[in-house]
Amino acid sequence: MLSEARVLDAADPLRHLRNRFNLPDDVVYLDGNSLGALPRSTAEVMENAVAVQWGRDLIRSWNDNDWIGAPQRVGGRIAPLIGAAANEVIVADSVSVNIFKLLTAMVQNRPGCTRLLSEAGNFPTDVHIAQGVASAAGLQLELGSRDELVGMLNDQTAALLLTHVHYKSGQRFDMAAINAAAKALGVPVLWDLSHSAGAVLLDLGRDKTQFAVGCGYKFLNGGPGAPSFIYVAEEQQAQLRSALQGWMGHASPFAFDDQYEPAPGMDRFLVGTPPILSLLALECGVRMFEDIDMNAVWEKSKRLFDFFVAQMAEHCPQFQLVTPTDAHLRGSQTSFLHSSAWPINNALIARGVIGDFRTPDVLRFGLTPLYTRFEDIARAVEVLSDIMTTEEWQEPKYSRNSKVT
Amino acid sequence: MLSEARVLDAADPLRHLRNRFNLPDDVVYLDGNSLGALPRSTAEVMENAVAVQWGRDLIRSWNDNDWIGAPQRVGGRIAPLIGAAANEVIVADSVSVNIFKLLTAMVQNRPGCTRLLSEAGNFPTDVHIAQGVASAAGLQLELGSRDELVGMLNDQTAALLLTHVHYKSGQRFDMAAINAAAKALGVPVLWDLSHSAGAVLLDLGRDKTQFAVGCGYKFLNGGPGAPSFIYVAEEQQAQLRSALQGWMGHASPFAFDDQYEPAPGMDRFLVGTPPILSLLALECGVRMFEDIDMNAVWEKSKRLFDFFVAQMAEHCPQFQLVTPTDAHLRGSQTSFLHSSAWPINNALIARGVIGDFRTPDVLRFGLTPLYTRFEDIARAVEVLSDIMTTEEWQEPKYSRNSKVT
Repeated sequence: MLSEARVLDAADPLRHLRNRFNLPDDVVYLDGNSLGALPRSTAEVMENAVAVQWGRDLIRSWNDNDWIGAPQRVGGRIAPLIGAAANEVIVADSVSVNIFKLLTAMVQNRPGCTRLLSEAGNFPTDVHIAQGVASAAGLQLELGSRDELVGMLNDQTAALLLTHVHYKSGQRFDMAAINAAAKALGVPVLWDLSHSAGAVLLDLGRDKTQFAVGCGYKFLNGGPGAPSFIYVAEEQQAQLRSALQGWMGHASPFAFDDQYEPAPGMDRFLVGTPPILSLLALECGVRMFEDIDMNAVWEKSKRLFDFFVAQMAEHCPQFQLVTPTDAHLRGSQTSFLHSSAWPINNALIARGVIGDFRTPDVLRFGLTPLYTRFEDIARAVEVLSDIMTTEEWQEPKYSRNSKVT
Repeated sequence: MLSEARVLDAADPLRHLRNRFNLPDDVVYLDGNSLGALPRSTAEVMENAVAVQWGRDLIRSWNDNDWIGAPQRVGGRIAPLIGAAANEVIVADSVSVNIFKLLTAMVQNRPGCTRLLSEAGNFPTDVHIAQGVASAAGLQLELGSRDELVGMLNDQTAALLLTHVHYKSGQRFDMAAINAAAKALGVPVLWDLSHSAGAVLLDLGRDKTQFAVGCGYKFLNGGPGAPSFIYVAEEQQAQLRSALQGWMGHASPFAFDDQYEPAPGMDRFLVGTPPILSLLALECGVRMFEDIDMNAVWEKSKRLFDFFVAQMAEHCPQFQLVTPTDAHLRGSQTSFLHSSAWPINNALIARGVIGDFRTPDVLRFGLTPLYTRFEDIARAVEVLSDIMTTEEWQEPKYSRNSKVT
């Protein structure tokens, strides 16, 4: 298995990219869709940001080091990864806050509607934010299964909120088809790209996507809690007013005017002062994609997936794959069901194989084409197979709770 | 002037604290109320956060390095600086977003009210966020002058939003008196402590303050765009529901439940994944106050103020002081009016004296008792006096615009 993997690694046109990251030698890291690995350049950029930009240049850095332009600049770097124009993407706040901003604004433009629609079992923060928005706007939040959703759309639907790739199963929606179906009924769609951007091939322009948000700390390698990005198609920007009217979204923030006037374009989705240190770390993460074709990234993801699934079928057949094998229907992960997924995942971590557990019974392994090697997959399957054979996952210590799963 | 300043510095019981910060030798920094200086320990903490916690420990840091507990832990460190209990303060998001959270929740608990009240000329983001909240809740936002505000309160007032120390003038409200007057009419008050926390003596408990937010990157030294803190008096916490219902504010975030249930206590004011790098930098900044009595901090602020004002009266009499001389009525800054404040401030910056311009005609100098020396003030006044005598501020380059003022 390992020698086969090494042959595949040697033939991988993206194999040189792993050197852009600092990964510990004793770890097989298959959780880049939860927290992306550390780019090699980040430490130096952060050292400079702290010691020079903050420590030496102090307040002058807002102009001299263009801190003030960072949300637009980093947004502009994310744009080509998702098939958007640079003036359609900005970085601000968290995914949750950005869903709130867009959903509230979208709903406001749909007076008379009575319903808000999302997927049952969508990532919790999406559903929770939607509940808050629905409740404030007097709408009924309805949650449907994947198969029901399109059929549940009607002209009373104020908005549809979907996560493009499901965090647990890795299932992917057909973005263009859903956009078209919703548009036919006049329903705007907000896409959460947290598990897509930076791995799955995206073309928001081609697919006629109007609204999206995404995560900075997964496939974009921005570091823990990196700020999120917001996308609004250019022709929609002027019609959308954020309920979070902060000074950074003002047309003239430094006029210090009592009267709020939204900035033109994406700037209106800024709220407070951006967290510059986290934002500059995100910029490093996004720069890992410089001079890389996203087609090649997605091609590698598909090959990693196929290899993973084949090895699991051979060496760990007791795990049931829940991620679709059809590449058009999935993201960049493999998820397997096992009733003892929690202790098994803990036993894997103890052996240096870091994947993720998702309640109640999912083992999830992220495939991050910039640094995941076929060798990592071979080693992970080998360790998993060993853990199952020795039954070491049954040791009581692996069943203990932790704050974060 | 300089020798007198040095005598005062030698007698300053807090003079050793400046060594906790890295300040450039060629700068007189009087803008710590816009961006606090860099603590000496921050670079190392950030290096560890990036290389070890993120790079080596990866996703395990949420548990192993207690990233998940950072919002509460840093909040607990801020609490003693503002006279709050540790379980009444949490760190999250920006000041703007936190004003939105609290104000929306406060207003929701006041059905039937028709008005929202704030100060005319309050910091823009406070007023802008309030406009958004008022508009969404169908309330009328009314702005009154300092003198009018208490008289404008009535039982139709859903909430009163005030900034404790005014960003421009440095004027301070009597927190206890306003809380009492508002309480008599049943009106909840939200205090923005951005220009108070870390410099002015605060005792939220004693003053019966129920709701407050504050800034992490000014007197708390948290770095550019550091996250903000939220304070809610313990007995109010259970009654308040944030409109921003994110997964981190859920009672069981990792149960991944479709149904939102707010966490008990302050945790319910978390929304998305916190920006850990910025949060750990803030923790360093707040630790600068360890083993320091806030009484001593405020005492030093008062002495710095008196010295500044006396020197200005003697050497730069053409500047009109707008900050109250009565210490009970002001924060930790000196603000002066001059019709050419903009080019004068730029000329000062070119000479290494960094204060702040605030539109249209205010020169503002922050007094940060942890590192501002009497010598800094003497040097600043000397340079300002020289700039006025030579009229070098009239050079055209000092009138140019910049993105950030």
